[in-house]
Amino acid sequence: AALAVAIIRALDDHFKLGLSNEEINRLAYESETLVHGDASGIDNTLATYGKFVLFKRGTPPEMKEIKIHQPIPIVIGLSGVESLTAKMVSNVRRAWENNKRLYERIFKEIDELVMQSVDALADNNLEQLGELMNINQGLLNALQVSSPELEELIEISRRNGALGAKLTGAGGGGAMVAICPQGAEKVAFAIRKSGYKAFVTEIGKSVSKESSIISE
Amino acid sequence: AALAVAIIRALDDHFKLGLSNEEINRLAYESETLVHGDASGIDNTLATYGKFVLFKRGTPPEMKEIKIHQPIPIVIGLSGVESLTAKMVSNVRRAWENNKRLYERIFKEIDELVMQSVDALADNNLEQLGELMNINQGLLNALQVSSPELEELIEISRRNGALGAKLTGAGGGGAMVAICPQGAEKVAFAIRKSGYKAFVTEIGKSVSKESSIISE
Repeated sequence: AALAVAIIRALDDHFKLGLSNEEINRLAYESETLVHGDASGIDNTLATYGKFVLFKRGTPPEMKEIKIHQPIPIVIGLSGVESLTAKMVSNVRRAWENNKRLYERIFKEIDELVMQSVDALADNNLEQLGELMNINQGLLNALQVSSPELEELIEISRRNGALGAKLTGAGGGGAMVAICPQGAEKVAFAIRKSGYKAFVTEIGKSVSKESSIISE
Repeated sequence: AALAVAIIRALDDHFKLGLSNEEINRLAYESETLVHGDASGIDNTLATYGKFVLFKRGTPPEMKEIKIHQPIPIVIGLSGVESLTAKMVSNVRRAWENNKRLYERIFKEIDELVMQSVDALADNNLEQLGELMNINQGLLNALQVSSPELEELIEISRRNGALGAKLTGAGGGGAMVAICPQGAEKVAFAIRKSGYKAFVTEIGKSVSKESSIISE
């Protein structure tokens, strides 16, 4: 999605099309749908606006910008295994169809964790946010979208001081994210020592130059 | 607990003490308490009676024998990492104290899974039992008592045909159990090929020679 937005912005700039963020987002969503078959719309939205957003799928999707007190240092660890979104989505869908009541309890629990995380961010309570991420990771594990490599990255991060760590994206491979307000470099170093790739960045800094058009 | 029961039975036999199962269980519980500080009583009970038992801690504990249709082939995989019961219990207790509402939702969910598993066993629905084990494993992961080695063993088992796989015991290391009504040997072989120890056995066969005194 980030690549789609970047390419659309580059074409917009080159051909002087004067696309609005809304149009860029819509075009990126269309390219996401072509790639994944059934895109949620969250990735293209985040890549377009570059902000912290609470997102709920729908037509139109519900979006709410989340303000945070200060940028949060994070470490991204790469499992080295490709994450196949379409495959993970269809696995979860099949399991849900066989066990709707059970799976819907897990989905509801994840929803509640997300809403509690918004409160934790509002309170700048990063310890609580970390705990919520750790529990969320367990629920994703219950949905069988984790992997041994992701679990190893997550354990290395927690053991080296991350307040919380979870897979990010579709799972089954791909990346994990750890929040590390102290010692992000230490976490990244430990990950690299175990043979994985890691990089340090932060979330919560606005990266879009245009002002947000996302409704509050 | 199994070792304690075996030693007590051997002493009982050697000194012709004529201990009842109830006495053997009580003595084994006392040795468990010495080792773990705060034993649940489940391990010594299962080792004494050698039956499938639904167990709830208490004074006295609630116990109910579970009848199953036929023995279920399982694979036990050993992580090669020591499982420190006292450490895992105190970690979970600390996390629970910091986040009671959140943790108690998880405990309640685990309780419900256990009760659903009793139904799955009564129906001889091993696919459902496996699914419940997989979700239970995710909830144990949320409580942070899993480990990368256990996750690897679990993934190997599922990928090779196990209907469900989860850690067994205190976690953080120790063992995992996979139910494998077809192809237990294949699962064990795949585990061994990845450098772990595995053995094939079955659950649900009565091993105690005395008739059960567990109340129904």
